[in-house]
Amino acid sequence: MVSWNNLDTLTSFKELTELKDRVNLVEAMTGENGADRVNRYSVPMGSGLVYNYAAKQVDDKVLEALAALAEEAQLAEKYEALYNGEVINTGEKRLVLHQLCRGQLGSPVVADGVDKRDFYVGEQKKIADFANKVHAGEITNAAGEKFTTVVQIGIGGSDLGPRALYIALENWAKVNNTLKMEAKFISNVDPDDAAAVLNSIDVSRSIFVLVSKSGTTLETLTNESFVKDALQKAGLDPSRHMIAVTSETSPLAKSSDYLAAFFMDDYIGGRYSSSSGVGGAILSLAFGPDVFARILAGAAEEDKLAVNKDMLKNPAMLDAMIGIYERNVQGYPCTAVLPYSQALSRFPAHLQQLDMESNGKSVNRYGEPVNYPTGPIIFGEPGTNGQHSFYQLLHQGTDIVPLQFIGFRNSQIGTDVVIQDSTSQQKLCANVAAQIVAFACGKKDENSNKSFAGGRPSSIIIGDQLTPESLGSLLAHFENKVMFQGFVWNINSFDQEGVQLGKVLAKRVLAHETDGALKVFSDLLNI
Amino acid sequence: MVSWNNLDTLTSFKELTELKDRVNLVEAMTGENGADRVNRYSVPMGSGLVYNYAAKQVDDKVLEALAALAEEAQLAEKYEALYNGEVINTGEKRLVLHQLCRGQLGSPVVADGVDKRDFYVGEQKKIADFANKVHAGEITNAAGEKFTTVVQIGIGGSDLGPRALYIALENWAKVNNTLKMEAKFISNVDPDDAAAVLNSIDVSRSIFVLVSKSGTTLETLTNESFVKDALQKAGLDPSRHMIAVTSETSPLAKSSDYLAAFFMDDYIGGRYSSSSGVGGAILSLAFGPDVFARILAGAAEEDKLAVNKDMLKNPAMLDAMIGIYERNVQGYPCTAVLPYSQALSRFPAHLQQLDMESNGKSVNRYGEPVNYPTGPIIFGEPGTNGQHSFYQLLHQGTDIVPLQFIGFRNSQIGTDVVIQDSTSQQKLCANVAAQIVAFACGKKDENSNKSFAGGRPSSIIIGDQLTPESLGSLLAHFENKVMFQGFVWNINSFDQEGVQLGKVLAKRVLAHETDGALKVFSDLLNI
Repeated sequence: MVSWNNLDTLTSFKELTELKDRVNLVEAMTGENGADRVNRYSVPMGSGLVYNYAAKQVDDKVLEALAALAEEAQLAEKYEALYNGEVINTGEKRLVLHQLCRGQLGSPVVADGVDKRDFYVGEQKKIADFANKVHAGEITNAAGEKFTTVVQIGIGGSDLGPRALYIALENWAKVNNTLKMEAKFISNVDPDDAAAVLNSIDVSRSIFVLVSKSGTTLETLTNESFVKDALQKAGLDPSRHMIAVTSETSPLAKSSDYLAAFFMDDYIGGRYSSSSGVGGAILSLAFGPDVFARILAGAAEEDKLAVNKDMLKNPAMLDAMIGIYERNVQGYPCTAVLPYSQALSRFPAHLQQLDMESNGKSVNRYGEPVNYPTGPIIFGEPGTNGQHSFYQLLHQGTDIVPLQFIGFRNSQIGTDVVIQDSTSQQKLCANVAAQIVAFACGKKDENSNKSFAGGRPSSIIIGDQLTPESLGSLLAHFENKVMFQGFVWNINSFDQEGVQLGKVLAKRVLAHETDGALKVFSDLLNI
Repeated sequence: MVSWNNLDTLTSFKELTELKDRVNLVEAMTGENGADRVNRYSVPMGSGLVYNYAAKQVDDKVLEALAALAEEAQLAEKYEALYNGEVINTGEKRLVLHQLCRGQLGSPVVADGVDKRDFYVGEQKKIADFANKVHAGEITNAAGEKFTTVVQIGIGGSDLGPRALYIALENWAKVNNTLKMEAKFISNVDPDDAAAVLNSIDVSRSIFVLVSKSGTTLETLTNESFVKDALQKAGLDPSRHMIAVTSETSPLAKSSDYLAAFFMDDYIGGRYSSSSGVGGAILSLAFGPDVFARILAGAAEEDKLAVNKDMLKNPAMLDAMIGIYERNVQGYPCTAVLPYSQALSRFPAHLQQLDMESNGKSVNRYGEPVNYPTGPIIFGEPGTNGQHSFYQLLHQGTDIVPLQFIGFRNSQIGTDVVIQDSTSQQKLCANVAAQIVAFACGKKDENSNKSFAGGRPSSIIIGDQLTPESLGSLLAHFENKVMFQGFVWNINSFDQEGVQLGKVLAKRVLAHETDGALKVFSDLLNI
């Protein structure tokens, strides 16, 4: 049996807090000691990735204390409970089953009379069949022409994850001759978002994927109408151009407005839904179902590693626990995600949602306020771009920001030039290696303005190349990391009540049922 | 004479610190009191914009203390010194003159024997002439065809600002029939960045703008070679397709490799360079010189407002001082920038550089360590997208993050639909109004998981529409805000020594002159 306790009630946490500021990172990472750490503080992830934490402020003693905390907090047991179908999302009284989209770690999970793994796999097959027919020209527009473009209409988890994954593999797919359709995304209720996307495509050759689990998301329904309007104005029948990804109980489920409908359920939260039809429909249409299956395979590999009870062999648990040390012992409020890969340009925005929406909570699973910081603020941009931007603060600012680097030995496209005896890819990799050491070790200079204190912690995930598999592994690694941290903080990482109040007030504004400050702001904005 | 003192030595700062947690924002913003605040706590900016700070944690007493601090810190006098040409960038012994690109606030500034305003205006005219000739088909490719695409090759300030401005006006320009050429950007040394852009354009009809003040930026020179290689492989003469924006003393200045060269100088820092040829060349080519001139006019209007010694009539100074209160009295480490405008999707990334690279410093102007936090961490995404992502943490997380909203009454494209009795634009505006009040006032619920504590401060900049003028005003507002905050912190906001160490170490990696941790990381990354 697992028991759910606040972090500050755990004995091992009290012991951990005594290890604050224990590691002098400048010393630890300088000289042969540093080389030894890089070799030792490394753990394999899935798809050939490696998580290296040599430049984190930990040593064997801190790691031991973190492992003790992971054990006392029963992280492995809680994960086991989750994948075996316990009601982990207590607020909404729901199971948490996104992992079942990519594998079966425990016993079959039956809910609502259905084997859930079968259900998710069945939907994947439906999507694959549909995508194959579109690619083969068996499903076409009314004029019998093949569809060339797929447009996702969704917001939040129906946008950020799928978009980040599409951008991550777009160039890879071109090089590997598997870009079947170009993908576009409409998310914002700002009418200029939909208008600009519609102006950039041939609507007569486009399929629109309407994604809303509840079928009631205001932005998404509004943008659906926006698109239908445009289709009708172009003399087209919207029902021949739209498919829905939704739950079986939603108003969109059995509607003749759609060419097809693919289902998910309440056990897959929006920010965890890239593995379901939410990511599956657009990515299968864009890249082909095989590529989407390879993403899922990479994710499944990572899920299996997360089962390991030995923290040092469980990269997601280890990453999570080091994050706990940074947040609750060292007191750092932020984490920056810095992929040295232009293809991952929107991956930080996905992780920002995943992490901040999951763990930006201040009450525990029983609704009681917690007395410690929970989820950090996540931001990031690709390197080397960030080096010429906000890295100044990261190196010499008054606050310390832990860093998560990601780097690959090889580019995706493979076109490259040798300038000053090195390729661009080598320069890219040299920069990320250099940054880790610069942040950790710093450098004294007699001009204090040119001096670097160092002691700024980072970790790096290294891979051969960003492929569907390694991308899937990255995706699942962070999902599992966030889950483990939520367990440690004793919060529910799977609801998002914090988004509700704004929705309620916005409706009131639109109904002109306002007073006080809200009325004046509404007037100022001409609503 | 101005005198430069650390913030914690100022009498008025000590008085300000006694006002910590003075304002109960829930009470202040509820009922008619709230309506009164929205009406009163508002100051006009340039181009018809308004800065409203009703939902900040200030009252008349706090504002009085902030005004006293602004006076004791001699903000107005320091700005005057800056625009009159004093050496404000003491680290690099340079004047700070980006404002001169858009107006002349003080007496003529003569440096290196040149009237600097004349010099900048002269370069603008050269750029305008060049752009007009390209648009008129007087400057063409070797086959006599008109150029259709312009590609910026630059990184950091040569990328983020110009890119954010281009994206901000791309749809506006289409609607107003002033999109002369499509713009693209190559920045990252990741070879996939350049390769993907080159694959997406017709290089034979493209002009490349090489932007590097020093002419030595590794990424930019590498990408230049990458592009030259592609041009040559396409049988084209690179010198007919490339122009340079650089300083007169750089190796690029008088080279026959370029169709033309336009000049800036050491008195304009990268992150402040959008008003110079760095933004001017690409934006004049993309939108026409008139549109670029309108951006500058909007910025100039804002610069004039920043001269006002009365803080309450000086939006940039007021915004800066409220930020000081939040950072140094309330102790908030971050600020989120949340534009309710898809066109401003990359504006937060520009502000992230502007702010974090300028004020992420821990030594004062004399090189002595400061004992207080300086520049905050800046991040942000457009609303309403962010509402379905990281807003959960902003509403219910354990940390408070001050918010900077931006909203416009009208969209740019004007295409819209009425759903449930309101347009998309009205929904967009209703959401931003609702969010301000939700963050400030919160809402009690007997289910603590659905309870909102409120007390989360925000301000909003409201305008009619995002136009060249209002965009220029926004740009200058934040430049001036960051400058004023740097003055208060007594730091040099105009150098960036923190980016140097990484460059040095990366060169060492590429030369294989490494040992210890750096060598092992280099091996792991196959360099």
